[in-house]
Amino acid sequence: MVDFIFEEHFKVRDYELDLQGIVNNSVYQNYLEHTRHEFLNAKGLNFRELHETGYDAVVIRAEIDYKKPLRSGDAFVVKIGMEREGRLKMVFHQQIVRTADQQIMVNAKIFAACIFNGRPIEPLFIFEKLGI
Amino acid sequence: MVDFIFEEHFKVRDYELDLQGIVNNSVYQNYLEHTRHEFLNAKGLNFRELHETGYDAVVIRAEIDYKKPLRSGDAFVVKIGMEREGRLKMVFHQQIVRTADQQIMVNAKIFAACIFNGRPIEPLFIFEKLGI
Amino acid sequence: MVDFIFEEHFKVRDYELDLQGIVNNSVYQNYLEHTRHEFLNAKGLNFRELHETGYDAVVIRAEIDYKKPLRSGDAFVVKIGMEREGRLKMVFHQQIVRTADQQIMVNAKIFAACIFNGRPIEPLFIFEKLGI
Amino acid sequence: MVDFIFEEHFKVRDYELDLQGIVNNSVYQNYLEHTRHEFLNAKGLNFRELHETGYDAVVIRAEIDYKKPLRSGDAFVVKIGMEREGRLKMVFHQQIVRTADQQIMVNAKIFAACIFNGRPIEPLFIFEKLGI
Repeated sequence: MVDFIFEEHFKVRDYELDLQGIVNNSVYQNYLEHTRHEFLNAKGLNFRELHETGYDAVVIRAEIDYKKPLRSGDAFVVKIGMEREGRLKMVFHQQIVRTADQQIMVNAKIFAACIFNGRPIEPLFIFEKLGI
Repeated sequence: MVDFIFEEHFKVRDYELDLQGIVNNSVYQNYLEHTRHEFLNAKGLNFRELHETGYDAVVIRAEIDYKKPLRSGDAFVVKIGMEREGRLKMVFHQQIVRTADQQIMVNAKIFAACIFNGRPIEPLFIFEKLGI
Repeated sequence: MVDFIFEEHFKVRDYELDLQGIVNNSVYQNYLEHTRHEFLNAKGLNFRELHETGYDAVVIRAEIDYKKPLRSGDAFVVKIGMEREGRLKMVFHQQIVRTADQQIMVNAKIFAACIFNGRPIEPLFIFEKLGI
Repeated sequence: MVDFIFEEHFKVRDYELDLQGIVNNSVYQNYLEHTRHEFLNAKGLNFRELHETGYDAVVIRAEIDYKKPLRSGDAFVVKIGMEREGRLKMVFHQQIVRTADQQIMVNAKIFAACIFNGRPIEPLFIFEKLGI
């Protein structure tokens, strides 16, 4: 297991809830993605700028374990750690923790790759900035 | 591998795209969920009515392989097959196929369980209707 | 009042509902937008292609009357009519009608303009295709 | 014009952008709604609890002027003021201001009413807490 090296704080917004009164499953991917982009920013890598210069980070696989549901008003933290897998893949380990009681709500592994003008590449300058 | 026994037809809507010009990762979970709910309907099970009578189907794990991205205007089909795992779990096998060329865009395994008034149960009447 | 000249058929998807069990207010804008883009398509104008050639249609004002809420499973139609206002503006008149009983759920007026490379222009070739 | 009496701070998240690279029109309604709910909270009124006790605050009309678009990374504030209109309506005046340069991005008037078990009522205890 890799160490968590970055975290982003959130609070549930009511429009993210569905008719069960819990955060809809798809919305957790929004939280996870926003945290990854903020993490990249903290490392000097901007998702939009990368896109505009031809580099697209793309998710190729997501494994998400939903342990407990977030509800209206819940504050939570999304933690992130990462490692390299093989020549081309980045693996983000992410955890969503409810602030009030430190319960783990979600565990996720997100596998990403880098595309340059439509083709997978080994983005050495990105790996270097990320320290992997 | 289980057989696909139901499918739902979709077309990408532009608000589902992100700045990369492709359908955002989280949106595929919307497609997958809507297809599961339509499948349940076809089997005489309504997600909202289940909720109102105390039964909540909840996703406990998602494994999603993103093979190729959907883009503006793409028509696609979401296919679904399912099986039971152990006493409590349902496993949905889902595939998103682009209509124009029958390319597989996404493969997914969604694990769900049934909660009755907050506790996991073995929903025999549901399993029976689903034929699993 | 302008005549409706195009319509698009929809069905509520459960992820569009919020904790009140009704379609969230913001989601109606998704329905309205998708219908406008399909209408443009029918007129030989593609929103994405316009964007890629430097032309962006942008909404500058929305007036939306929410009459009755859409619920889980509702089928509905979004109707559209349009007119020109002044030299630069397009006004879309849109109505959301529940299929089952032909009740009007939403009335909307959406004001849009056309931006070329960041500046408002009078898009004559667009107005011509739209017949306004 | 009423005074602004509450504000909520936000930052654009990349999944909120569309293919034009700007925040999608519908997403501003999410920002406006979340700010209203946080404002209600600050006044001792919880949207979910109101719903669970039979009271639903519902939007009946939205007027939204889009002045300038928010982009990736933008920090912004949503301001809110309110007044009563007639016996049954609440009017929220809301403004979205980009933090970096204090530019007004959106002006909105949101008209809401209160429903109790499906029928419009004059929610005196709510108006009292809101001071209108």
